[in-house]
Amino acid sequence: MDTDYDSHRENVAGRANVETTPELRAYYEELAGAEAGALWTVANKIEPWEPVSASVPVLWRYEALRDKVLKSLDLVTPEQAGRRVIYLSNPGRRDVVAAVGWLYSGLQVMRAGERASAHIHTASALRFIIEGEGAYTVVDGHKMTLGPNDFVLTPNGTWHEHAVAEEGTDCIWQDGLDIPLTNAMEANSYAVHEDLAQAVTYPVDDSSGVWAAPGLVPSGHTWNKGYSPLLKYEWEATYEALQRHAKVSDGSEFDGIMMTFVNPATGGHVMQTIGASMQMLRPGERTRAHRHTGSFLYHCAKGSGHSIINGKRFDWKEHDIFCVPSWAWHEHANASDTEDACLFCFNDLPVMEKLGYWREEAFGDNGGRQPVLG
Amino acid sequence: MDTDYDSHRENVAGRANVETTPELRAYYEELAGAEAGALWTVANKIEPWEPVSASVPVLWRYEALRDKVLKSLDLVTPEQAGRRVIYLSNPGRRDVVAAVGWLYSGLQVMRAGERASAHIHTASALRFIIEGEGAYTVVDGHKMTLGPNDFVLTPNGTWHEHAVAEEGTDCIWQDGLDIPLTNAMEANSYAVHEDLAQAVTYPVDDSSGVWAAPGLVPSGHTWNKGYSPLLKYEWEATYEALQRHAKVSDGSEFDGIMMTFVNPATGGHVMQTIGASMQMLRPGERTRAHRHTGSFLYHCAKGSGHSIINGKRFDWKEHDIFCVPSWAWHEHANASDTEDACLFCFNDLPVMEKLGYWREEAFGDNGGRQPVLG
Amino acid sequence: MDTDYDSHRENVAGRANVETTPELRAYYEELAGAEAGALWTVANKIEPWEPVSASVPVLWRYEALRDKVLKSLDLVTPEQAGRRVIYLSNPGRRDVVAAVGWLYSGLQVMRAGERASAHIHTASALRFIIEGEGAYTVVDGHKMTLGPNDFVLTPNGTWHEHAVAEEGTDCIWQDGLDIPLTNAMEANSYAVHEDLAQAVTYPVDDSSGVWAAPGLVPSGHTWNKGYSPLLKYEWEATYEALQRHAKVSDGSEFDGIMMTFVNPATGGHVMQTIGASMQMLRPGERTRAHRHTGSFLYHCAKGSGHSIINGKRFDWKEHDIFCVPSWAWHEHANASDTEDACLFCFNDLPVMEKLGYWREEAFGDNGGRQPVLG
Amino acid sequence: MDTDYDSHRENVAGRANVETTPELRAYYEELAGAEAGALWTVANKIEPWEPVSASVPVLWRYEALRDKVLKSLDLVTPEQAGRRVIYLSNPGRRDVVAAVGWLYSGLQVMRAGERASAHIHTASALRFIIEGEGAYTVVDGHKMTLGPNDFVLTPNGTWHEHAVAEEGTDCIWQDGLDIPLTNAMEANSYAVHEDLAQAVTYPVDDSSGVWAAPGLVPSGHTWNKGYSPLLKYEWEATYEALQRHAKVSDGSEFDGIMMTFVNPATGGHVMQTIGASMQMLRPGERTRAHRHTGSFLYHCAKGSGHSIINGKRFDWKEHDIFCVPSWAWHEHANASDTEDACLFCFNDLPVMEKLGYWREEAFGDNGGRQPVLG
Ligand SMILES: [Fe+2]
Ligand SMILES: [Fe+2]
Ligand SMILES: [Fe+2]
Ligand SMILES: [Fe+2]
Ligand SMILES: [Fe+2]
Ligand SMILES: [Fe+2]
Ligand SMILES: [Fe+2]
Ligand SMILES: [Fe+2]
Repeated sequence: MDTDYDSHRENVAGRANVETTPELRAYYEELAGAEAGALWTVANKIEPWEPVSASVPVLWRYEALRDKVLKSLDLVTPEQAGRRVIYLSNPGRRDVVAAVGWLYSGLQVMRAGERASAHIHTASALRFIIEGEGAYTVVDGHKMTLGPNDFVLTPNGTWHEHAVAEEGTDCIWQDGLDIPLTNAMEANSYAVHEDLAQAVTYPVDDSSGVWAAPGLVPSGHTWNKGYSPLLKYEWEATYEALQRHAKVSDGSEFDGIMMTFVNPATGGHVMQTIGASMQMLRPGERTRAHRHTGSFLYHCAKGSGHSIINGKRFDWKEHDIFCVPSWAWHEHANASDTEDACLFCFNDLPVMEKLGYWREEAFGDNGGRQPVLG
Repeated sequence: MDTDYDSHRENVAGRANVETTPELRAYYEELAGAEAGALWTVANKIEPWEPVSASVPVLWRYEALRDKVLKSLDLVTPEQAGRRVIYLSNPGRRDVVAAVGWLYSGLQVMRAGERASAHIHTASALRFIIEGEGAYTVVDGHKMTLGPNDFVLTPNGTWHEHAVAEEGTDCIWQDGLDIPLTNAMEANSYAVHEDLAQAVTYPVDDSSGVWAAPGLVPSGHTWNKGYSPLLKYEWEATYEALQRHAKVSDGSEFDGIMMTFVNPATGGHVMQTIGASMQMLRPGERTRAHRHTGSFLYHCAKGSGHSIINGKRFDWKEHDIFCVPSWAWHEHANASDTEDACLFCFNDLPVMEKLGYWREEAFGDNGGRQPVLG
Repeated sequence: MDTDYDSHRENVAGRANVETTPELRAYYEELAGAEAGALWTVANKIEPWEPVSASVPVLWRYEALRDKVLKSLDLVTPEQAGRRVIYLSNPGRRDVVAAVGWLYSGLQVMRAGERASAHIHTASALRFIIEGEGAYTVVDGHKMTLGPNDFVLTPNGTWHEHAVAEEGTDCIWQDGLDIPLTNAMEANSYAVHEDLAQAVTYPVDDSSGVWAAPGLVPSGHTWNKGYSPLLKYEWEATYEALQRHAKVSDGSEFDGIMMTFVNPATGGHVMQTIGASMQMLRPGERTRAHRHTGSFLYHCAKGSGHSIINGKRFDWKEHDIFCVPSWAWHEHANASDTEDACLFCFNDLPVMEKLGYWREEAFGDNGGRQPVLG
Repeated sequence: MDTDYDSHRENVAGRANVETTPELRAYYEELAGAEAGALWTVANKIEPWEPVSASVPVLWRYEALRDKVLKSLDLVTPEQAGRRVIYLSNPGRRDVVAAVGWLYSGLQVMRAGERASAHIHTASALRFIIEGEGAYTVVDGHKMTLGPNDFVLTPNGTWHEHAVAEEGTDCIWQDGLDIPLTNAMEANSYAVHEDLAQAVTYPVDDSSGVWAAPGLVPSGHTWNKGYSPLLKYEWEATYEALQRHAKVSDGSEFDGIMMTFVNPATGGHVMQTIGASMQMLRPGERTRAHRHTGSFLYHCAKGSGHSIINGKRFDWKEHDIFCVPSWAWHEHANASDTEDACLFCFNDLPVMEKLGYWREEAFGDNGGRQPVLG
């Protein structure tokens, strides 16, 4: 509890600017004893002029993390650890185990033939495959096979489990969840499947067979859950979509060619709390800077480049992960003049939009490019 | 005006059953003079026990119509005729120029190098290509190139025009519109473009490039019009989607493998008044009968088979068109044991659904198959 | 079927203008034999420049109709007639028994102690009380007591019945339904309750007790049907709302102080196909003319005045009914400089809005007032 | 940062249970140096079996707070303090200045003739009047006059200011905001009006005049903002609605007669992040216990009673405030056998619902009543 009552004073009309006198200090202490306080001692802090993020921009290099992730194969078993995951820890969010904002992320590794226990939770999750063969996920009886750069949903309220086929290889993937948000909202819950595994009750990859069609949905469907019935989004079709998009559109000056993954039954975000997108920076492309609310975790799916975040440059290449905190200025550049570069991203856009918190601003000076400070 | 006041009497509790006396007849005539009438003389007629359709089932054979359509090439110019179209006339709907219910349809032919005048109307339209090369449509500055079995939207309130490229061939397609509905709802309007043609202001086929992706939409899009921004639905991707669907699902007992064309921004119907679907009957497949509200116009896109509609058998093959009126029992069968058969369909399902008029019933007897009467 | 193939020709670029030659006439006859026709012979008719209505403006004077309605008390019993109703017959819509557009209306009379048989249908209905005491309606077990100028819903798919209490008096009310629309959409159905009456299973007027509150709904409600759970809208609260509205707003230049009856669970129209409103013309008020799509049936609930519809003046007083067809110019005037005048209206606005058919235009000339022709 | 890596171990299949060895400790430290961590050291903490709330149940007695609030009149001026507010500080949420969960609340006092500076912020707010005459609020040019137990909205993105008329008295009210949530979501922003005051551009209380009608909205309105255009909810109409509700319904076994304040244009919550309700416990009523997600702050608007929250009894009377944290068992009882008792409540239900976090459970044992522990 803050007892330096003067620390947030501002000498601006309409803002709190009360000098602490001995009489006031006594009053403040009396209030504290009654589970109360004087608003003017904290008003300027809790009503900032602009969005303030607790997160800092971070880049996690895959080549640095990969060895550490693989090392866990020998250090712990899935039975002991539940899951062998190295989580990404934002220095500003260690208390809530978040990579950025209220989003959790980690790198998980699983050997061929391993299968994690089936469970269910209120948190929503996705899994973006980095390397290895034979990975698959089961969600409410639907089994999805997964290859590099595919991503799969394990939404709020579904029974799910991850595994690698016997004939597969060691697999590494990135997990993305809203665990910190679900905990912050005091709504998380967890259960382990009574059999530790669930039956596969549909043909393998049936969700793609039924729902992954352009402008088509199964007739007479009655899908009305809060998440996409598609469940799996494949890299090949996604990359092809970006290519076709780039042929007919200049895209966004802030993001290049960018597409959002959606629930085909609604056109909305893939889950109730997490959005996801894939964007392509064309050869030589460098975007202009903007800032907006929401927390974003990027994963380089292809190529290399750099992003400038609040004036600091972060160079990235394949499978590097970096975050853009809320209201941070950011712009992206492809390092190559001949190859495109692709960034997968997951974020809390559904939350920003539904709660009325979305706000966006272009960087007006300097032709839309930030001066690089570090 | 009906003056046989006894013709709708029913001897059922709760229904009108008034015998016309001389006194009543005088009363009825007095009412007629005051722009009024006695409900009980018409109540049983206007409150039927079950939905009644004015349309009759009809099959239009393409081989019979094709010559007639081509003949129009020599009989009229596009300048004189506006469009060279032979419309389908349901014997029960000649007064409103409908093929079934409140849906209009016709076969249009255009020579290479011809271009119809650009115009706009309240009616919503689609165009399903039958044969020829080089057909294209322009909608609000978007040019869509079209091949056989592709279909394209020209929605309510858009400037549009059809044409065939100079280097193309004679093209025939099926038009589908809600003109009768728009007129019945007393809402139609029409205007010709002041230049008789509009500029193409986007890259060719840009709507497919941007919107025809599985589970992906352009980030930050603000599409909120009443129709699909995809505009063109290509046969190749549609047929492939049906194939994939069939691998993982048994489909519907009434319709086989069936998918609805949707607006990718919402997951809803392609236009505000017209829905469309493509269904596949697998080799040897024969569906069960059901009936429901709504008017449906089918076009055989591939293969051959038959449908039994209200007990009458209609055999169809490629490019034959047939209708299923509201509340008619219907079931479909593929004629081949080795090839699949595909039916394109457009209908007024959006209207039935939005107005609360959708109702469906399975044919319970005889294992779900109708006795064939004719 | 039209055989004067030249009757719709227009000499305008982009419109059909084909002169019938003997060769063409032969062609047209050949087409007719194949259940087909040449679009250019009807195109200009079915694609009008502006909305065309089949209805004509009509005013039905209550003093003229009342005697006729009362006379039916002696002519038929409810058991014979089902309901003792004199329907309003628009000269342009006699074939579909409509008062305007696709809306049916009639005046019904019931003696104290009479109770009509309970039934259900796809058509949606409302009942606006004109005179008498003791009228009530039962909808799915909810009993609503009704006084003059109250109106009550009996929506699509509900069991319902009208009655007058033993201790009441002869009651007259106006019925309003979408029967013509439901029939036109080929979706109507009807059933009589097996007991000819249903049980009242809720406290009397419970829907008002629970739902008729300003800005309040029952917590945790799960209402998601296509119609308003309020069911009854009382005159007293409605008139009071208009008074309060008028104190703080100038209202609409076309309609004065006008409020739409809504489903409190959604803020939308009271039923899926029928909207309703009450408007007040302040002392001396005269509105400006506009026209729009949709069919409107007005009932003078209070006061007197006149409306000018397509240049013709219609003077109305309490309980007179008049219609405004689609796309007809119309403006309203209060006859009194000291009293307000109120118009109840029901219409097909939900249909116009959902199908994308709404269109509106102000009368620009002459200060917004039509020249009066008749 | 947690360095007792063993503190969250659970010996349950499917949960993390890794004993820290020296080798693992070294590994954990290496990970920490790379902004990473081992999930299994925190997994059981961040994936709890059931929702965990940081808030504790608290009751703030008005008689204890009132003097402290009034004392601020002499201690600070509005100019210095911005607003003279004593905020409610939940012992579990002091770090975020919340009364419960992510909801802020405080008691504000203003002298007759005082007017706070006009401002705008991303946080959403409401104001529930406790005592005094002449209070009013201005929102985007709409002035709302306020009496005891009225509440008014000052939503996200509106210019607003509170004041007391010259001819009024000292006024005390409760403020309720989502400031902690807006800050947590890193989306807050703030601006002071350049003139420190805004013009009143509509008739006083026009929002009530136009929108506070049962089942009626202004015709042709185009309201589509994220909050209710009604803005003010008056006690008199609310209490009357509860009375009428109680006459026809038994209400909820958990909440008695309870109604939710809604946006009349949509039937949804009054603001995007905050819901509000008023409930009445009838004479002698005692509800059954349940628990659910979401944070709730209650204000006794009338009468007296007690609530049992997680087994602890809290007795309340008029203007006492108490909170129910997420997932806490709670039940309510009226202290009187002759008078009803009313509880105003505001909460984060819109957030729980939109994000898929709502979950509810009845207390099954002991006839639905908790054993009282403290
Ligand atoms: Fe999980
Ligand atoms: Fe961005
Ligand atoms: Fe057209
Ligand atoms: Fe069917
Ligand atoms: Fe009826
Ligand atoms: Fe009008
Ligand atoms: Fe404020
Ligand atoms: Fe509760």
